[in-house]
Amino acid sequence: MDCNRFVEEQIAQIKQIVGDAKAINALSGGVDSSLVTVIGHRALGHQLRTVFIDNALMREGEPQRVVEVFALLGITVELVDSRKEFLSALAHLTDPEEKRQAITDTFYSKVFGRLVKEFGAKFLLHGTILTDIEETVAGIKRQHNILAQLGIDPQAAYGYSVIEPLKTLRKDGVREVCKFLELPAEISQRIPFPGPALATRIVGEVTPQRLETVRTATSIVEDELADSGAFQYLAVLLNDYATGIRRNRREFGQIIVVRCIESIDARTATVTELPWDKLNRISQRITQIDGVNRCLYDLTPKPPATVEYV
Amino acid sequence: MDCNRFVEEQIAQIKQIVGDAKAINALSGGVDSSLVTVIGHRALGHQLRTVFIDNALMREGEPQRVVEVFALLGITVELVDSRKEFLSALAHLTDPEEKRQAITDTFYSKVFGRLVKEFGAKFLLHGTILTDIEETVAGIKRQHNILAQLGIDPQAAYGYSVIEPLKTLRKDGVREVCKFLELPAEISQRIPFPGPALATRIVGEVTPQRLETVRTATSIVEDELADSGAFQYLAVLLNDYATGIRRNRREFGQIIVVRCIESIDARTATVTELPWDKLNRISQRITQIDGVNRCLYDLTPKPPATVEYV
Repeated sequence: MDCNRFVEEQIAQIKQIVGDAKAINALSGGVDSSLVTVIGHRALGHQLRTVFIDNALMREGEPQRVVEVFALLGITVELVDSRKEFLSALAHLTDPEEKRQAITDTFYSKVFGRLVKEFGAKFLLHGTILTDIEETVAGIKRQHNILAQLGIDPQAAYGYSVIEPLKTLRKDGVREVCKFLELPAEISQRIPFPGPALATRIVGEVTPQRLETVRTATSIVEDELADSGAFQYLAVLLNDYATGIRRNRREFGQIIVVRCIESIDARTATVTELPWDKLNRISQRITQIDGVNRCLYDLTPKPPATVEYV
Repeated sequence: MDCNRFVEEQIAQIKQIVGDAKAINALSGGVDSSLVTVIGHRALGHQLRTVFIDNALMREGEPQRVVEVFALLGITVELVDSRKEFLSALAHLTDPEEKRQAITDTFYSKVFGRLVKEFGAKFLLHGTILTDIEETVAGIKRQHNILAQLGIDPQAAYGYSVIEPLKTLRKDGVREVCKFLELPAEISQRIPFPGPALATRIVGEVTPQRLETVRTATSIVEDELADSGAFQYLAVLLNDYATGIRRNRREFGQIIVVRCIESIDARTATVTELPWDKLNRISQRITQIDGVNRCLYDLTPKPPATVEYV
């Protein structure tokens, strides 16, 4: 791929479409939305407002760190604290589809929808990549009509539109462009992290306490596997409990699954054949988390499993 | 240990206690109850009735195979089909304690209690080992007052008593005595299998369909790991579902956990560091089971996890 040409074309196209109107984008901290943010700011400067929405589902210290990294690139990212809105929308939900729907609805209809209108943006920049489109067409991902989700009727509200600068790229192409733009490795080499964030790694109800458990497990896994060279690694909190024994007493404990995969573009994946001393160390650290007494390693390739659990 | 002396002492003691009365024992097929059956028959011959109760929770072909193996040793084992009673007692139960209680109640109060009275046995031979006693004392296993569970008041029903010939041995001692007695490897090398059988390997409700799933997974794991030299290996069906992708469609699938451990006496255990080609093969076969799309490997030592899940 000719990265220079790709970037120049996207900048020109965004400029042409947006003209002197205002645009907005939501940065998740993932590599896709990070690249859109950088290209968008090169094209639009202060016409583009970039927000990072703290949905309470992010990793340890993540919202603050994302704002910091972009500040170093000269890009202002506005941190929006919406933790309460997301947590109350998720309370008591256990069905995976209902959980995803609650996150989507809160994001678009409540939080982001409000910001779009507040700012008077007519254009939305979005980090859709080719794999997203393919999986939506195949029925694996749900259809996201972004404007409809924002409560905007594209017919009635002339001028609103979504720009997807990365829709011809797969994950490896996105990383290549990031490297070409000399973005810090913290962005370009960032392991994939899903939109609904840690909620996709909690089977069952998402509560502040269960988030804390999976957040701690995630920190351990990321710390231990940062140098593994793997495509992606993550921790999942199951809803099931299993019998264990602690201080010579029977106890029911929570179960953490560790997943670590090799992949080129997330379309297919295989388990990373980690060394046993690493697996044993992870298991030992994970079972020191309060209430957790099992640590499992996911052996399944994609397909038939997906990367995430929810 | 002097195996010859141990066996002779136990035979003499059983003879002395039972005299010319009748005794009964329930053979589960595990190494403990198998050894009790052999020693019991050497001591008592036809005064001892040995029953194998098919509780619907056994492994593929197990009830028939156990009867066959003992027939070759000249010991008649009576196969009692109680599948319906156990399955109806387990229906709709999901709490681990309630499930274990339902199995215990059905076994003692209904099925075995009836057989004891029918046969007129005053003595029960039981395969309790030292580890069972220690774990009961420590509060890890529940207390089993066998006579009380049979609805027998030891005060009122003078003469009833339980004989536990193996209560001074741990698992390794049991195996040593089996080898001394030249019992077939199928008995002496049999991997441990819990009393409540496959029900301890189903998190959530025990149904005929879920039993079929864990039974198939168990066959695969036992087939693949028979030559692993591990202390114990097993498959567990979780209650949670996870997202997967099959024939390009999103699906929620069941999750099988594979557990394989190194241990001397089951008091402590560590994960078997299986070769990756073996783990990948197991995962591939497990995810071909109808409705299953994840295969996890349990990394946790005992403690803090136990061997079984329920």
